[in-house]
Amino acid sequence: MTSDLLIRNARPLGGEPVDLLIRGGRFSAAAGAAPAETIDAAGCIALPGLVEAHTHLDKTLIGMDWFENRIGPTRNERILADRKAKRERDMNAHRQSARQVLQTLHYGVLHIRSHVDVDTEIGLANIEGVLETRAALRDLVDVQVVAFPQSGMLPRDGTFDLMDAAMAAGADIVGGIDPATIERDPVRHLDAIFALADKYAKPVDIHLHEPGDLGAFCLDLIVERTRALALQGRVMVSHAYCLGMLEPARQRTLIEALAAERISVMTVGSPAAPALPLRLMRECGLIVASGSDGIQGTWEPWGNGDMLERAKYLAQRNGMTNDADLAETARICTFGGAEGLGLAGYGLAEGDFGDLVLVPARTLAEAVALTPQRRTVIRRGRILVREGVPAQASIFDPG
Amino acid sequence: MTSDLLIRNARPLGGEPVDLLIRGGRFSAAAGAAPAETIDAAGCIALPGLVEAHTHLDKTLIGMDWFENRIGPTRNERILADRKAKRERDMNAHRQSARQVLQTLHYGVLHIRSHVDVDTEIGLANIEGVLETRAALRDLVDVQVVAFPQSGMLPRDGTFDLMDAAMAAGADIVGGIDPATIERDPVRHLDAIFALADKYAKPVDIHLHEPGDLGAFCLDLIVERTRALALQGRVMVSHAYCLGMLEPARQRTLIEALAAERISVMTVGSPAAPALPLRLMRECGLIVASGSDGIQGTWEPWGNGDMLERAKYLAQRNGMTNDADLAETARICTFGGAEGLGLAGYGLAEGDFGDLVLVPARTLAEAVALTPQRRTVIRRGRILVREGVPAQASIFDPG
Repeated sequence: MTSDLLIRNARPLGGEPVDLLIRGGRFSAAAGAAPAETIDAAGCIALPGLVEAHTHLDKTLIGMDWFENRIGPTRNERILADRKAKRERDMNAHRQSARQVLQTLHYGVLHIRSHVDVDTEIGLANIEGVLETRAALRDLVDVQVVAFPQSGMLPRDGTFDLMDAAMAAGADIVGGIDPATIERDPVRHLDAIFALADKYAKPVDIHLHEPGDLGAFCLDLIVERTRALALQGRVMVSHAYCLGMLEPARQRTLIEALAAERISVMTVGSPAAPALPLRLMRECGLIVASGSDGIQGTWEPWGNGDMLERAKYLAQRNGMTNDADLAETARICTFGGAEGLGLAGYGLAEGDFGDLVLVPARTLAEAVALTPQRRTVIRRGRILVREGVPAQASIFDPG
Repeated sequence: MTSDLLIRNARPLGGEPVDLLIRGGRFSAAAGAAPAETIDAAGCIALPGLVEAHTHLDKTLIGMDWFENRIGPTRNERILADRKAKRERDMNAHRQSARQVLQTLHYGVLHIRSHVDVDTEIGLANIEGVLETRAALRDLVDVQVVAFPQSGMLPRDGTFDLMDAAMAAGADIVGGIDPATIERDPVRHLDAIFALADKYAKPVDIHLHEPGDLGAFCLDLIVERTRALALQGRVMVSHAYCLGMLEPARQRTLIEALAAERISVMTVGSPAAPALPLRLMRECGLIVASGSDGIQGTWEPWGNGDMLERAKYLAQRNGMTNDADLAETARICTFGGAEGLGLAGYGLAEGDFGDLVLVPARTLAEAVALTPQRRTVIRRGRILVREGVPAQASIFDPG
């Protein structure tokens, strides 16, 4: 579903004003006949679609009764509470994932990678629900589904077979989880998920919360397997807190090793977790993406999924306040995410897909710092949201 | 300027729905004759006015040209850039402070403590400008003015005399700044500002960024002087990062010493600064307030001054996600701030001033997590903002 559209007076990435032409769903330089529709961007900043590189679409409680959170602080308590909530509440994965995708579309999020739980209680129900959303909303937003063993894979018999079944059912990416502290056997866990990725010729995305040297050891193992299976550009490590906890020499060596294998790192910039060294990571050429993690779920009550606000969180966590740094965090939430997710045709150049967000701000830094809400969202030349309001109400009715 | 008002179906602090009557500017239990006006709160949560315990009203650039920030990361670089901007830009302190006060009134911020620069370049101009705003907006918001030696007092001859003149001109509080790293003489700095507070019978508020044991030493000196001058309940320490950097025994001893002298601590919950131990501070009975610090200025480009959003930042920085913890951070941004600022008649009980904010949320935790914007703001029984919209446009025209 594409439209021809001329966007006048837009400022790509905050630069000088230009006209952007979309024909046949892609940016085009050829003027030719006037397009059917023209809009005036009035000097708004044009960004390619925002990239949500890490969320949990099956976990959000958007639109449901308030969940009173009385959960203790450990990761295990939270995993248990999360499983209990799935049992006791009507957390229909299709409905909930569609709600989040449509909510974040208002902000201009056009690409989403979602981890989706696979476990011996829920089976493939959540995978199927999110795959249904992926299909239903495919003309609006790209969704990548990671088969994610949230409750552990090795310690829970049958989970690996379910992961295999999830990949066969259409999941896009093989997920992993803390190979040491949850899985208790780093080599066996990583060998298993890399083998699955190899079997289905799919990428890998590993939740790695392991701290300090333990996390660094797991990263070494991930680097070795990426090299051995020639999976350069196909492996993402999510969180990787350990990168913010090492002494400088080890930190740099490890970041260089990740960059050499084109392994990307996703960081949320959580205020309560170690800050990753964003400047050093950039200097070393590491691909950095970002995400909201779960929003409005049992894990955390907040979050709106706005990836411009996420760029602000990244800057705040790193004590970055100057304009160049804020432009860099905006880059992470657009081009960085696109590279980490392996998106083709991403950007504002001729030939790229005609997807963009118009943000009313004077500079890219202001867009990050103040996250203006009256955005216009365009996909393949089709206007989905006009100055914060759905272009057609029906778009936002997942039916 | 007060009105009689009956507010039906409001939920104080998220509790059961009640009717709240305001007569003669205060909450009243007596029903008597029907009041002139009645509104239906429709189950909104009622909070007393939000308390901004630490901002810099003279530093905001709201409504001005975008400031391209190219400043280095040290505090000294930022102080120099800040002074330069004051020289080179038309940062009229009255106009800018009024803009911020009126912006945050939309969120329900009814009490503000602002540090205001006093230095040998700006002289008393900023103090006079913010005092003018305090007077012009006194029927809308309470503003406390701290005479603040941002550029240093001891190292810059003449600053102390300007501080004295600022107090004589009507400033409410004597401000201090890093007694060691900026002032280079902790005892002489603290003796000087405590003497000034004693001379004018005014409270003290000290910016204390000093790290670890150095900060702890300065806190010891502050405790000694508070005790000697019987200033219990009249001293606030802002930031106090050192409290988040000490080994546990020293940390607890120091917090207990502060609590014993009723010295309050203001923390912003900055994602890039050490997290203060909020749970321990509460357990020890320490008065904790919070603030936005500067918003949209040369120091930091972001910030909206919403103290409910600030409660979310406090929770996020401390890794707090459960409902009870979020209610506690909401308390810090209301009752904690009121206690730290020494506000009389604060609260929702009979006899308290008839000030409140109605927030459309199911629970107090939801109000913090999602910071709903369509709030109703009432002061002394007078409706200033109705569901996010100014009740009369003229209120928000500072003239």
